Order: sequence, then structure tokens, then C-alpha cells
Amino acid sequence: MTTESEVSRVVDARTYAEVLQFYSRHFQLLDEGQAEQWARQFTEDGEFGQNVKPEPRRGRAAIAASMRRGIDRLAGTGVTRRHWFGNVIAEPDGDGAVRTRYYATVFETPAGGGPARVYLSTTAEDRLERQNGEWLVRRRHIVHDGT
Amino acid sequence: MTTESEVSRVVDARTYAEVLQFYSRHFQLLDEGQAEQWARQFTEDGEFGQNVKPEPRRGRAAIAASMRRGIDRLAGTGVTRRHWFGNVIAEPDGDGAVRTRYYATVFETPAGGGPARVYLSTTAEDRLERQNGEWLVRRRHIVHDGT
Amino acid sequence: MTTESEVSRVVDARTYAEVLQFYSRHFQLLDEGQAEQWARQFTEDGEFGQNVKPEPRRGRAAIAASMRRGIDRLAGTGVTRRHWFGNVIAEPDGDGAVRTRYYATVFETPAGGGPARVYLSTTAEDRLERQNGEWLVRRRHIVHDGT
Repeated sequence: MTTESEVSRVVDARTYAEVLQFYSRHFQLLDEGQAEQWARQFTEDGEFGQNVKPEPRRGRAAIAASMRRGIDRLAGTGVTRRHWFGNVIAEPDGDGAVRTRYYATVFETPAGGGPARVYLSTTAEDRLERQNGEWLVRRRHIVHDGT
Repeated sequence: MTTESEVSRVVDARTYAEVLQFYSRHFQLLDEGQAEQWARQFTEDGEFGQNVKPEPRRGRAAIAASMRRGIDRLAGTGVTRRHWFGNVIAEPDGDGAVRTRYYATVFETPAGGGPARVYLSTTAEDRLERQNGEWLVRRRHIVHDGT
Repeated sequence: MTTESEVSRVVDARTYAEVLQFYSRHFQLLDEGQAEQWARQFTEDGEFGQNVKPEPRRGRAAIAASMRRGIDRLAGTGVTRRHWFGNVIAEPDGDGAVRTRYYATVFETPAGGGPARVYLSTTAEDRLERQNGEWLVRRRHIVHDGT
């Protein structure tokens, strides 16, 4: 339940612009198949969980390896995926960290081009932390709509 | 007709970040089925109109009640809806208010998950006003594409 | 290949807000069929290229004329198109210019309304320059997914 006081807890404009730019780069790296660069945007001890998987991936190396397998499988199909993020709520989460809740929707275009389909609609919740001037994901949890 | 001088009338970065965060929270509340919390983001005398309805809803209570009925109907179907907002133009509208024009598109995922469909594409125009440090919708008008 | 130092090169919050507002207006003008107003957001010597066309359009007048033809053809079908932009990366590009890379996805609603389809998913890369206090597109290149 969101209370009225919670409604006011928003990050400042500078942080919000940084967060949007962080996600823009993050999801573009993913869609370019740069699993390792993408995983570098998690902390070394980062966690990546999904409600449709029994356990979260723990640690940047495991997160990278898992995503690399997914990307390589997809490459064999010729399909292009685009992960859009949107509706980003960002709140202070202690120690300079930020907690976000946002929508992430994946569009798929078949080899050869033409109309796309909406492959998946999800919501996501992250804890972002700053390290050496960069935002990194400490913890992410994805929930697939309808599941 | 947009003139060249109108092109320059944009709100500052701080207001723009506030507006984006306002809508993020607003549409997430809606999709979580929090009709009453969502309606609290209208002014007490707020108006909500759609081109496909004969009359706008007038007043926060009527807006909440109407949305509550819609959400309860939807809950019976097991479908998950996600209201994405985007392409947000925000201009000063006098007395510290902001006039926005944006796109709002609704994705639907069936019970059980899987690919989504684009249930509806709309454009929206709001007048936002500040009260006690919070942005609130004074007036909203939605136009459904193709109608 | 994106290096770690490149990850840090982001524009400031004010520029980012301006860029988002620029694109919001730009794509709304397009979808309203305002080809000439839309083309005024290119520099006089602007270029507009797509990977599915042999040559870029060169110059604001040629860009406007080409888009006018496209819009007039579309008007005959009764279809409403909405160009969404998202996932906007913006980096300083020398001389006060900004280089952006973003996603642009087009939704289509048939005459009469109802569910939309995802007509096209693309990525875009622009060089934006300031002239007389306005952002303008100096060069745009669009790549259609799957082609």
C-alpha cells in the first residue's frame, strides 16, 4: 500500500537523468548481444532473479554466463529483440542507493524484418548502487506478467 | 499549428523529471489495481474525459469509483494490463501549472503469461497543478487512436 | 565495443531533459502529419538516412518533401501511426553537439480503433546541434530491425 508520504519520495532530477541513461545503455548492450559488458553493470556480488526461475543468479560472472547462453541461443533464430524500459519510479534507498520499479517489455522482429510482436511484458525492481562514479545493479527481480 | 516560438516553451529539467516520476507512479498504481490511490493524484475537483465517452468524470470520488468498476471487471478476466506513457511534451500553463501531451499505450498479457498484445493506443492531454508539494491532475482528456 | 570509460560519458540532466522533450515534440509532429514543421527540426543541411534506402535525403526541403509524400499516402489508408522513442543514450559529440542512440517503434491502429499492431521496430542514431537555442538534427540514421 502506497501512502501519501511515500508518493513524495522521489530522487532529484540529476539522479533521475543518470538512472534513465544507465538503463538506456544497459538494455542497448543486452540487445546488441554484449552479455559481458551488460553484466559489468551489476556489482561483483550482484543478484538477478526472475519469478519464473527457482533461484536467482548470484555474482557478475554467473549473470554474464547465463545471459551469454541465452543470447547465443537467440542468435541462432535470427530474431531481433528490443528490451524497452519505461514508467521508471526511483526512490532513495539508503546509503546513496536508489530503488527502482519499472516496466520492461520485449519486442521481437523476425529475420527479414517487418512487423514485430510483443514477446513479453514484465515489471522489474532494482537496487542501484554507485561505485567509482558508476551506477551498478546490486539486486534485480523481474516478474513476468500473467505468471 | 505549432509555431517556432512554441517549440521553445519547455519546462525546466527539474519539473520534467518530476512530471516523468509522477506519471510513472500514477500508471503503476493504476495497473496494480489501486484505483483509490490513483484517483488521489487528481485534484478534488479533477476531470477525466475520453473522446469515446459522452461526458467526463468530474471529481476525485467519481473518478475513483469509475476506475474501481473497470479494475474489478478486468480482475475477473485474469488479464494483466500495463499502461505505458511516453513522448511527453510538458509546457508551462500559467500559475505554476504544466500542460502535457503524451502517448499512452496499453499492453495486455493473458492469464498464464506469454506474448502480449497492444490492447489500445491513445494520446493524452493533462493540466497538472501543484498542491502541497505534489503534482495532481486537474484535467485529463484521452483520445483513442482510430476513433 | 563499449569500453568502461565510454560508459561514463553521459550528458548532464538539463541537456538530457531537453533532448527528451525535443524528441517528444518531434515525433508528435510527425504523427500529426506536420511534415514541414517536423522537418524544421533538422538543420538546413540535415541528412536523413535509413538502411533500407539506397541514399539519405539531404537538406531540410528534401526531407520535408519526402515525409509529406509518406504522410499523404498513409492518410489515404485511415491508419493512425504512433512513433515511440525510448532507451535514449545521449553523449557529448564535440562543439556542444550531442550524439544519441535510441529505439523507435511504430504502432498502428486501424481506422475505427481497437487493438494496435507493432508495425516496425527500429534503432536510430542522431547528431543533434544547437542553433539559436533550439536543438536540431544534423544527421539521422535509422536501422530497421531484422533487415
